[in-house]
Amino acid sequence: MINIYEDINKLEATFRKTDEFQNLKNAVETVRADEEAKVLFTNFRDVQLKMQDKQNAGEEITEEEYVFLQKTAQLAQQNPKIIGMLEAEMALSAVIQEINRIITQPIQAMYDGL
Amino acid sequence: MINIYEDINKLEATFRKTDEFQNLKNAVETVRADEEAKVLFTNFRDVQLKMQDKQNAGEEITEEEYVFLQKTAQLAQQNPKIIGMLEAEMALSAVIQEINRIITQPIQAMYDGL
Ligand SMILES: [Ca+2]
Ligand SMILES: [Ca+2]
Repeated sequence: MINIYEDINKLEATFRKTDEFQNLKNAVETVRADEEAKVLFTNFRDVQLKMQDKQNAGEEITEEEYVFLQKTAQLAQQNPKIIGMLEAEMALSAVIQEINRIITQPIQAMYDGL
Repeated sequence: MINIYEDINKLEATFRKTDEFQNLKNAVETVRADEEAKVLFTNFRDVQLKMQDKQNAGEEITEEEYVFLQKTAQLAQQNPKIIGMLEAEMALSAVIQEINRIITQPIQAMYDGL
């Protein structure tokens, strides 16, 4: 039985040291420290989660609710500190995608010619 | 600049040595070596990809096409060798999910209390 956890934990420690990870950490702290940015972000996130819960419960989302969601999203995405955080999220997401690409590559190869 | 690739490659090498990876590799070879299982699998996969292409192109999938897809899926999923491959795929998928869970855990923690 191979112990894969040693290698996962080592990668995770290095992942936390990347510029992309540290940049997101700083960007989130910048939002957290600014009351306006923090409220805009948490409002948008809470409205979004509430809509998702309704959808998962099979409840209908009204036109009014959808317009409100769009408005809170627009307001949040106009805040420079939130923009910085979203950009940092995308950059870190690219690192995670790269990790997944390399790990799953040998799986694709199994199916070659099938 | 951190070199994360060294750790990703080391994890990928260990990943390829897990029972779950080797089991899937064997299960795919078992399907490949059996003409009946191979045809049932590739038929289903090709019909599924064709439907996805149509959906992505915004084309309508007819009731007839949908029934055909369901039938090819059912036929494939009754074959013991394909069942073995699908089970091996799920087991390996659980390992990948575990890797992702550990890597992304410190990201969730950044947003705590926000
Ligand atoms: Ca401000
Ligand atoms: Ca057979």
